[in-house]
Amino acid sequence: MSLSDIPIHALKEEMLTLLGEMAVHTDEPENPGVTRPLYGVSWLSAQAALAARMEEAGLSVRYDNVGNLYGRLAGERDSEAAVLTGSHVDSVRHGGRFDGTYGIAAGIAALGYLRRTHGKPLRPLEVVSFCEEEGSRFPIAYWGSGNATGIYDWRQAGSYKDEDGVSLEEAMQASGFGRADGPDCRLAPLAGFVELHIEQGLVLEHRNRRIGIVESIVGQRRYALSIEGAANHAGTTPMTLRQDALAGAAEIALKLESLASSWGEPLVATVGKIEARPNTPNVIPGYVEMTLDIRHSDEWSLSAFSDLVLSEIQRITDRRRLRLAVTPWLATKPVPMNERLTARVEAACAGLSLSYQRMVSGAGHDAQLMAPLCPTTMIFVPSRAGISHSPDEYTSPEQLAEGAAVLVSVLYDLAYKE
Amino acid sequence: MSLSDIPIHALKEEMLTLLGEMAVHTDEPENPGVTRPLYGVSWLSAQAALAARMEEAGLSVRYDNVGNLYGRLAGERDSEAAVLTGSHVDSVRHGGRFDGTYGIAAGIAALGYLRRTHGKPLRPLEVVSFCEEEGSRFPIAYWGSGNATGIYDWRQAGSYKDEDGVSLEEAMQASGFGRADGPDCRLAPLAGFVELHIEQGLVLEHRNRRIGIVESIVGQRRYALSIEGAANHAGTTPMTLRQDALAGAAEIALKLESLASSWGEPLVATVGKIEARPNTPNVIPGYVEMTLDIRHSDEWSLSAFSDLVLSEIQRITDRRRLRLAVTPWLATKPVPMNERLTARVEAACAGLSLSYQRMVSGAGHDAQLMAPLCPTTMIFVPSRAGISHSPDEYTSPEQLAEGAAVLVSVLYDLAYKE
Repeated sequence: MSLSDIPIHALKEEMLTLLGEMAVHTDEPENPGVTRPLYGVSWLSAQAALAARMEEAGLSVRYDNVGNLYGRLAGERDSEAAVLTGSHVDSVRHGGRFDGTYGIAAGIAALGYLRRTHGKPLRPLEVVSFCEEEGSRFPIAYWGSGNATGIYDWRQAGSYKDEDGVSLEEAMQASGFGRADGPDCRLAPLAGFVELHIEQGLVLEHRNRRIGIVESIVGQRRYALSIEGAANHAGTTPMTLRQDALAGAAEIALKLESLASSWGEPLVATVGKIEARPNTPNVIPGYVEMTLDIRHSDEWSLSAFSDLVLSEIQRITDRRRLRLAVTPWLATKPVPMNERLTARVEAACAGLSLSYQRMVSGAGHDAQLMAPLCPTTMIFVPSRAGISHSPDEYTSPEQLAEGAAVLVSVLYDLAYKE
Repeated sequence: MSLSDIPIHALKEEMLTLLGEMAVHTDEPENPGVTRPLYGVSWLSAQAALAARMEEAGLSVRYDNVGNLYGRLAGERDSEAAVLTGSHVDSVRHGGRFDGTYGIAAGIAALGYLRRTHGKPLRPLEVVSFCEEEGSRFPIAYWGSGNATGIYDWRQAGSYKDEDGVSLEEAMQASGFGRADGPDCRLAPLAGFVELHIEQGLVLEHRNRRIGIVESIVGQRRYALSIEGAANHAGTTPMTLRQDALAGAAEIALKLESLASSWGEPLVATVGKIEARPNTPNVIPGYVEMTLDIRHSDEWSLSAFSDLVLSEIQRITDRRRLRLAVTPWLATKPVPMNERLTARVEAACAGLSLSYQRMVSGAGHDAQLMAPLCPTTMIFVPSRAGISHSPDEYTSPEQLAEGAAVLVSVLYDLAYKE
């Protein structure tokens, strides 16, 4: 299927209209961007709007028991494993209009187009609007795909609370989900899952490629460091007698950066958060807390680099007579995408004459939960300046449409040809 | 006068009793340490207690119009310029019991001892409890010595407000000062000012000296830096495409430290405060604010080093494609002490067989305001572990008594011999 075979203009208009419509479903209409936390008012209305659009596209609609919303196009061989596409409907606070929602809107437009143009597929085709991925209201992420894949169980929602003290269970039930007699969440076996998403990074823009084909989603290690020195007077303490926790933290941050740069891509390492005490201009900081975030698509590299960094940090703090405590608080393994599906995305790009880039996803996505369940791949479109989780998140209409055309092509391949 | 000539035990007991008594004058008796802000309840009771002790020591007592409290021992030639000692009665929040108060308590004990032992001096001898030095309630420091020396004028107190919105003028008048018909604040010409103070640093303890003789009070430069990069996703942004404001700040902090160490003593330079935004573990910090505090006893060195540092910072931020804004917000010149008085303190230490160290004061003191007005010097005693502005501030009774003995010897020299 080539780009000329796909009525890209109609696809684009339908998807853009839906994206524009979705952007008004925000809990903070007075602020720029989208704020759509799980089970909030705007979340409910967003899912309801998507359900209506799914019906308009000729899909049969169902919710599961946590609020994941599915639109189904029945297949000739309707009892066979379905091909699924989609993404998540929730947003971070003051997020953008594309993160997650784009994959759902494009999926609905794609299924509508395929139904109108090619009729019934061989296999059933579904689009999902996962209820939650960001972890921004409750201290748990991937609530949607986690329940769909059996990583989570909606019956264990009680212990997570939001900032107002509302439990995940209470919020879920108030939205009409989490019922004892509710529909099952676990997905039946699938023939494949294809997630279309904005890149949320700079790689495609920087290398001037239209499409990113995800080979792997990185594994992550996160650490909290606490560094204790001695808080002394900034005027009366000679340089030689200091135990400056912030100078130690600075050396650590710089060492992390230089080690990561020389290790090479796709490794990334970041100090995102730092807090010094007493944090007063004329006192040498006696205590610093900082975070490390390390990511790589290869587990051995992730582990070896993390070990190297931690031993260097220990060396720095020992030399500076600082006390170090390291708390590991997140460790996820890299998740490779399915090579057969990835090759199909590549072929679709070639067929559509779209430049592309095989790459790793440095961010987590629902696809990483789906990958153990069925052949899974991800398609990226560029994000302007790499900005995401911000009202400034932007991908041009043409770029959005190109991603949707690739999705159409891949879904056609997977559901109509075999 | 040698140590054996001074009844050090009696001096010590009197001073320690007074110091212990002063420590209960705190606005937060439920918390450790001393919290005695200018014109607060505990400030009033502390000055009243000191006035009572001054009278007991045979001194005639007066307040000036901002609440500086003086105790005077008349001289044979009572119209001649007086010799003044003392320090400040206010404290930082949760400060120690020695900072400031020690110099007043020792001064009262010293004048009482000299009167009892040697009678009337040739010149008048005075001890002062300056109302304020720390700048911890209102955004202005040295309110006491500033009014005494004419740097400040009590009539211009209105514009400074505390955290509760109370103006300095209101607080001053509520305490009975700042009256239109109040007594003058400006000091008459003085023969000398000697301030006894805890070191608030590590030098004496580290070098195992009993007494510090201040040759100079450092000048200070303080700068606020703001560093703007780009806040991007910590997972999706390759190391080569980052504009990490925190990594830039880390390089600046480390460069400041290494330049300061190689420049050599008495230069000190500190990053005391840092704030990163958005300060989230998985986002590359796009913005950092940080402070620089640079001190030296020599104005040329202070200026040359500051220029060097700022040019290095510009080089770092340019190379990293970060935008830099530098706001200078404090610049004070070094203040040399009077060499004749300093030599007298040295002779007093030698006479009392106390080891001593000529040094610079890295902290500001009332003495720096007095120095332009009259021959001025400072005497330091050790601070355990250099800790000050903390309930853990500590100087041993023996060390306190040795400092007081040096003060007695110097005051005797200045007021009884010439």
